[in-house]
Amino acid sequence: MLTGQEYRASLRDGRRVYFQGRLVEDLESEPALAAPLAAIAGNYDKYYSAAPGAVNPVLLAPRSQAELRDRIPVLMELDLALNVTYQSLMTLLVAAPKVAAVAPEIAPRIHAYVDQARQRDLRVVECITDAKGNRSRPPAAQDDPDAYVRVVGRRADGVIIRGAKLHITAAALAHDLMVMPTKTMKPGEEDYAIACAVPVNAPGVHVTATTYHPLAGDPRDFPVSSQDSMPDSMCIFDDVFVPAERIFLDGQTAQAAVFAHSLGLWERLGGTSFMVVQADELVGLAQLIAEANGLARVSHVREKIDEMIIHATLLRAGLEAALTHAQATPEGYFYPDDMYTNVTKYQAATQFNTMVRHLHDIAGGAVVTAPSAADFDNPTLRPLLEKYMAGGDGVPGDYRASLFRAIRDLTADAYGGWHLVTNIQSGGGLFAQRLVTRRLYDMDRAKALALKAAGLPARPAAAETP
Amino acid sequence: MLTGQEYRASLRDGRRVYFQGRLVEDLESEPALAAPLAAIAGNYDKYYSAAPGAVNPVLLAPRSQAELRDRIPVLMELDLALNVTYQSLMTLLVAAPKVAAVAPEIAPRIHAYVDQARQRDLRVVECITDAKGNRSRPPAAQDDPDAYVRVVGRRADGVIIRGAKLHITAAALAHDLMVMPTKTMKPGEEDYAIACAVPVNAPGVHVTATTYHPLAGDPRDFPVSSQDSMPDSMCIFDDVFVPAERIFLDGQTAQAAVFAHSLGLWERLGGTSFMVVQADELVGLAQLIAEANGLARVSHVREKIDEMIIHATLLRAGLEAALTHAQATPEGYFYPDDMYTNVTKYQAATQFNTMVRHLHDIAGGAVVTAPSAADFDNPTLRPLLEKYMAGGDGVPGDYRASLFRAIRDLTADAYGGWHLVTNIQSGGGLFAQRLVTRRLYDMDRAKALALKAAGLPARPAAAETP
Amino acid sequence: MLTGQEYRASLRDGRRVYFQGRLVEDLESEPALAAPLAAIAGNYDKYYSAAPGAVNPVLLAPRSQAELRDRIPVLMELDLALNVTYQSLMTLLVAAPKVAAVAPEIAPRIHAYVDQARQRDLRVVECITDAKGNRSRPPAAQDDPDAYVRVVGRRADGVIIRGAKLHITAAALAHDLMVMPTKTMKPGEEDYAIACAVPVNAPGVHVTATTYHPLAGDPRDFPVSSQDSMPDSMCIFDDVFVPAERIFLDGQTAQAAVFAHSLGLWERLGGTSFMVVQADELVGLAQLIAEANGLARVSHVREKIDEMIIHATLLRAGLEAALTHAQATPEGYFYPDDMYTNVTKYQAATQFNTMVRHLHDIAGGAVVTAPSAADFDNPTLRPLLEKYMAGGDGVPGDYRASLFRAIRDLTADAYGGWHLVTNIQSGGGLFAQRLVTRRLYDMDRAKALALKAAGLPARPAAAETP
Amino acid sequence: MLTGQEYRASLRDGRRVYFQGRLVEDLESEPALAAPLAAIAGNYDKYYSAAPGAVNPVLLAPRSQAELRDRIPVLMELDLALNVTYQSLMTLLVAAPKVAAVAPEIAPRIHAYVDQARQRDLRVVECITDAKGNRSRPPAAQDDPDAYVRVVGRRADGVIIRGAKLHITAAALAHDLMVMPTKTMKPGEEDYAIACAVPVNAPGVHVTATTYHPLAGDPRDFPVSSQDSMPDSMCIFDDVFVPAERIFLDGQTAQAAVFAHSLGLWERLGGTSFMVVQADELVGLAQLIAEANGLARVSHVREKIDEMIIHATLLRAGLEAALTHAQATPEGYFYPDDMYTNVTKYQAATQFNTMVRHLHDIAGGAVVTAPSAADFDNPTLRPLLEKYMAGGDGVPGDYRASLFRAIRDLTADAYGGWHLVTNIQSGGGLFAQRLVTRRLYDMDRAKALALKAAGLPARPAAAETP
Repeated sequence: MLTGQEYRASLRDGRRVYFQGRLVEDLESEPALAAPLAAIAGNYDKYYSAAPGAVNPVLLAPRSQAELRDRIPVLMELDLALNVTYQSLMTLLVAAPKVAAVAPEIAPRIHAYVDQARQRDLRVVECITDAKGNRSRPPAAQDDPDAYVRVVGRRADGVIIRGAKLHITAAALAHDLMVMPTKTMKPGEEDYAIACAVPVNAPGVHVTATTYHPLAGDPRDFPVSSQDSMPDSMCIFDDVFVPAERIFLDGQTAQAAVFAHSLGLWERLGGTSFMVVQADELVGLAQLIAEANGLARVSHVREKIDEMIIHATLLRAGLEAALTHAQATPEGYFYPDDMYTNVTKYQAATQFNTMVRHLHDIAGGAVVTAPSAADFDNPTLRPLLEKYMAGGDGVPGDYRASLFRAIRDLTADAYGGWHLVTNIQSGGGLFAQRLVTRRLYDMDRAKALALKAAGLPARPAAAETP
Repeated sequence: MLTGQEYRASLRDGRRVYFQGRLVEDLESEPALAAPLAAIAGNYDKYYSAAPGAVNPVLLAPRSQAELRDRIPVLMELDLALNVTYQSLMTLLVAAPKVAAVAPEIAPRIHAYVDQARQRDLRVVECITDAKGNRSRPPAAQDDPDAYVRVVGRRADGVIIRGAKLHITAAALAHDLMVMPTKTMKPGEEDYAIACAVPVNAPGVHVTATTYHPLAGDPRDFPVSSQDSMPDSMCIFDDVFVPAERIFLDGQTAQAAVFAHSLGLWERLGGTSFMVVQADELVGLAQLIAEANGLARVSHVREKIDEMIIHATLLRAGLEAALTHAQATPEGYFYPDDMYTNVTKYQAATQFNTMVRHLHDIAGGAVVTAPSAADFDNPTLRPLLEKYMAGGDGVPGDYRASLFRAIRDLTADAYGGWHLVTNIQSGGGLFAQRLVTRRLYDMDRAKALALKAAGLPARPAAAETP
Repeated sequence: MLTGQEYRASLRDGRRVYFQGRLVEDLESEPALAAPLAAIAGNYDKYYSAAPGAVNPVLLAPRSQAELRDRIPVLMELDLALNVTYQSLMTLLVAAPKVAAVAPEIAPRIHAYVDQARQRDLRVVECITDAKGNRSRPPAAQDDPDAYVRVVGRRADGVIIRGAKLHITAAALAHDLMVMPTKTMKPGEEDYAIACAVPVNAPGVHVTATTYHPLAGDPRDFPVSSQDSMPDSMCIFDDVFVPAERIFLDGQTAQAAVFAHSLGLWERLGGTSFMVVQADELVGLAQLIAEANGLARVSHVREKIDEMIIHATLLRAGLEAALTHAQATPEGYFYPDDMYTNVTKYQAATQFNTMVRHLHDIAGGAVVTAPSAADFDNPTLRPLLEKYMAGGDGVPGDYRASLFRAIRDLTADAYGGWHLVTNIQSGGGLFAQRLVTRRLYDMDRAKALALKAAGLPARPAAAETP
Repeated sequence: MLTGQEYRASLRDGRRVYFQGRLVEDLESEPALAAPLAAIAGNYDKYYSAAPGAVNPVLLAPRSQAELRDRIPVLMELDLALNVTYQSLMTLLVAAPKVAAVAPEIAPRIHAYVDQARQRDLRVVECITDAKGNRSRPPAAQDDPDAYVRVVGRRADGVIIRGAKLHITAAALAHDLMVMPTKTMKPGEEDYAIACAVPVNAPGVHVTATTYHPLAGDPRDFPVSSQDSMPDSMCIFDDVFVPAERIFLDGQTAQAAVFAHSLGLWERLGGTSFMVVQADELVGLAQLIAEANGLARVSHVREKIDEMIIHATLLRAGLEAALTHAQATPEGYFYPDDMYTNVTKYQAATQFNTMVRHLHDIAGGAVVTAPSAADFDNPTLRPLLEKYMAGGDGVPGDYRASLFRAIRDLTADAYGGWHLVTNIQSGGGLFAQRLVTRRLYDMDRAKALALKAAGLPARPAAAETP
């Protein structure tokens, strides 16, 4: 396993990471990257064990419903780089037998890769979304055949890939990019049916980075994003060689969606858990600021907080149902029920903006106009701000202002914007979640219930739609 | 136990039931009452056992989480009279030890009452909501002191009560009225702290009835309400004597809310289960009519059905969570978690009208304009209606018309109106459910999560609101 | 012009109207038809003039924005039969010049027909929606070629039509059925491009009827529907001959949609005006029942009424905007702006169910459980009901009960169900209104505003989508 | 009048503006302040006239409905400093006669002040919201009597005030602070009934500033906020002397709300107009990005854009209705109808977050992950980014990326957060707008309509609630 310090050293590997147009020579010199890098390093230290053969315990799959349930608070504490590493490795393990059915040589490759990734204590990020060009067309019908990542050359010892993957969280700070097809592929799209692990520093890989870390200003004004935000990247594969032992799918179009589907299983566990906690956090913030404003007993404020409570509890119910009905892969890895998880994510995503509105409605305009932390440092201003930002009944001005700053950072600035967008888009977007729900729902049961409720027989057999 | 026939005979007991202004001499002569009476009688026959000491098995309390879960499909099959009998007896059993704490003589009375009710196979309905007068005032501050049921006289062997209870489902067709205080009472309101069982035919009891059964027309046009609807009543207690052995609370104001709270535990199990199934039924009806209209693959229709699916699944998740976190009374009776049940009912009630809108939107105007069943009997019309109501692809006209009639009956006529109102009002109305949710939610945890997310310390101790 | 009595006589014309499977010999003998018939007759008397050449003044088109605005309260007072007559005649007048462009002989026919309809004081109902069979297919691709009304035979003096039209309000009580294509037709669908006026009593016409009038029970329990409801019909044209002078379109597929579009102009004026008033009525009912319950000052009740007020005022704003931007046909007939009217109808329809929920939430369960009017007639019950239905502070029990009955009749029984369905479906359904809105919205302006707000130039010209 | 250059010079007046804890000696040296300062200066130049006695024409009140309508596009072009100056001066003119009724000496003061403000071409900002302490208590019941601005001393020639005002847009860049009571005052609160104009540089005035201008990074990544954002301030009055001629209210508690009410009239015109345009902008952005993504014809994308269109058109209808029913002050100044304006603002504010969700849903995750403008400058990256950000069909990558950046800046970063909060809070917050709507709505008409619809007489007179 790696210490935080060893992790830091491991990133000095010649990678081409760009930030605001600059090729970043030293990631730690760029504050927007250094902060999340430090958070990742901190977790390396937290989980470090010098014992021979030790691996990070969070990288093991849950083997029972109880282990699955116990995993949730652990996942909530991970940095996003470690979280996606977990998801990536689990995805490979679940996909292995399905791909092996048509390409038996692949299963041992996958197990070998996962073992060494655990042994070397790597951070592996998931690369799903392609550039896509015109998004209403399939890969083979694009103006630019590289709009989806594809194999453009073959050598005896591997393949050469070209294309780009978008929205890759933590790519700039990880070791390997786990490239997977974004969707099912059809015959004739064999070159697009490619899954493989690519080192971030492989020749031909270029990684941009966008950040939700405060670009400037006092970290105290950004109490959350200065600690928790993680850069997203576009990863460009400009004719990158991938050796055979790192190829996990190559041309098996019928299995192309296996990876995305497997990834979904694990991604949703973390994503849904996060959203459940996020909903409770918003309730808590609303209550704290209502109390600080002296408004916690005002009827319309309570009604809004009630709605936030009901929302948060519904989401928690969805997670509970997903855990109660957890299912196991053939290998015995437990994952939350698809249907309940999907529905919970959908509900969380569609209602999040309204919950933010309630919070802003309750808190007031000082969410964006409250004096900054540095203003409180100014000796002239401090007594005036303490006096005028105070909430009465002994609520200190600085405490109240710090609540406003936290609300702004979480919901009304760059990091809040990242949540607004990613809550909707993670896991494939709202429409994808509707499609999954439609597919999983037991419509035959619903139709039978409807006929029974209506006191009707089934539709005459001769009349069935084929 | 009683057979259906014995039950029918038992109702000829001199009761004063009024329907549309008439004192009904023979309940079976009034179609709007005869149909639900027959449904209740049918369940008497279904559960009848001639074995000595036999009691209806559904009247036993669940003793484990598994029994609780197994009970749900059973409850869904009960008529409402049997359903509320179950709730009434369970309510008494759970309330007994709490009342006994201050009035030890009451516990044996309750157990004796419940035992004989089971032995005699009675139907016992719950009487909660008072007339209330000006609903913004407490009992003692009303213009009319009888706005809440109260004790107006005392004898050595019992009390005399006066007042009225509203919204009593199945009262006209039951044996006993279980009278309970609708809410907590305060010192000075001792006379209002009265709980007791009153025979429907007790002198001074008057029972009105409203119905959602078709008042006229062909039962085939009302396939659901002609079978399933149950009359509601206002039960008036015009100086009714109650013997001591049927009094379960008398003046213990601090315990007045025990019954309403206990009732809530059992009422919600049935109510929430019903709403979960109802949501699936609406999905099924939407899909059936979309198929019959040839529109099941049209994008905007699918989107609406998706929303209905997501709603139904969220409700089911809420019920699952309530079962997973089922709690036990001190006596070992299992009931679903309050918080999740409340939230599920709230969500079901607030979204029901929108789900009905989706169904009507998908189905089309023929929900209300489709020809009646009798129209299809007319030899001139039948071939024309079969031809023009057909949906193409072999969907028969009569089948499609029967779907429209069922949708109308369930959602756009008297019985649908009953659902619109009672889905909101059952269990105390939306606001009551918000209050319960607010009380049960773990706000301290939410505040702690918020402070942690915000990177803030707790509010300075000196500044805490008392 | 006709008196009410003459109108009654005019309906004894051999028409084949069926109600619940029976051919109705005398419309006035069937209570569900007699009541709306009487309402129509009442308006005949109201507008009757014995002056030679007199015509009903409401059947004239508005000639200015001011006349259009003044027409609204007039329309609100009309029975539905007179209302649709107005719409039908206006539709013909606006369609005439457009059809005349390709079939010059038709314009004089239309004007002659409209003139005699006014002179003879006829009621003319609009027949738009076809049977449609499989609704995802066009007329020519149906299993049954009669799924849309079509010409099946030709004679020197006219045509023979076959098919059925659905959702025809007041057909059983009118004189003429104005048959129009439901949508645009394509080359090859000439036989479906037929518009004509057919007497209700023409041989081969069969008219079913569905009703929202109380089928039984005391009219006082149905204070609205016993007065205002109007039956809907399915009108079947079983090889009906139509003489040439009553044919307004015959084979001109390119003009097939002219009638539906023209109809839309006039239909929306009435429909939107009605919904605006309906929204205010719901506010009024909510406030009245809140006052009667003693809850008008309770915070959460006020909040719900506030939402209803805001909804009603938004709708009124939509109507105001439609009037302010009223447009004129080439003939100088003023009609409300399409875009604002569509949007207002859409908003009204999508929010109606939620407004009904607020009303039920505020009113309470007595909406469906309140004693009937006849119960108050019973001498034993009356004093008890007056006592226990009273609202405190002098609110009489019977007054309060009558509010509950009105709310039930308007929103929670057959007539309320008719509103739930028709509010959504009138004018083509929600999806049709979205399509119209999409077509009318000035997207180029919105895109220009967006580019300006974004500080962006327009998309490079070479890159424009064709 | 002042040129832009003269305006810049006028701000070097010794004012105490603080930014992030620093006292800012030269406003133009602080980028977050320099950019909005330049925007204001630009409008000085735009409207400058050297003619003697010239004043800025936008500072004149509309004298007819037509002038009011014509003013809207003009207001949309103003910077916020000029916009609030307009509002402040109009507020004073409308308030003057009402205050003069009890304090005749004040009207000439107000007119003299307005005249000189126009002549000197000042920027005057409105200071309404007080610090408020515990917001559930009135001014006189606060722990700190200075929680609301008050008179703490009197001299022969004026008064001394103490307190703070929050959320003051453009205060740091204006000349005068127009201090007004935030609400009605009661007898005993005379010292809080103070309205006056205070120079920003008056001794004792301290002004903080928060900004939504990009704190760092490339302005091209913030195409809107780098141009349009305006700082907000907390203005602290630490025992500030105000000469008598600048006092517009002093102790007349009954008139305290006159200023806030007058301000509302003018504030809403601009605010509502802005929101109407903002809604169209969001539609345009959604359509542009859907086209750039190749998804503009996909059904679920079109449905979402339809919803945005309907929302935008409803808001426009609200503005149209407010203009059609514009009202005039006694002085003949036209302002939009209160009721329609309030309702439109409420609808705009409550639906804004959902419209943002639709935009993010349509656009995709690249809203936050798209490469920065500077990334496109990098010669290595540029061809790769152009290739992989291209949308197909000739949609250039940089154009598409620039749309994502604009959407992020407008809706998912600091400036978007400012909109989320201020759309809700401007004009007093959602609850305030509900209160106003409740007050203005014609409830008597609604109740009469309801009784008529219900076929009911009015409630018996004896039973009326007093």
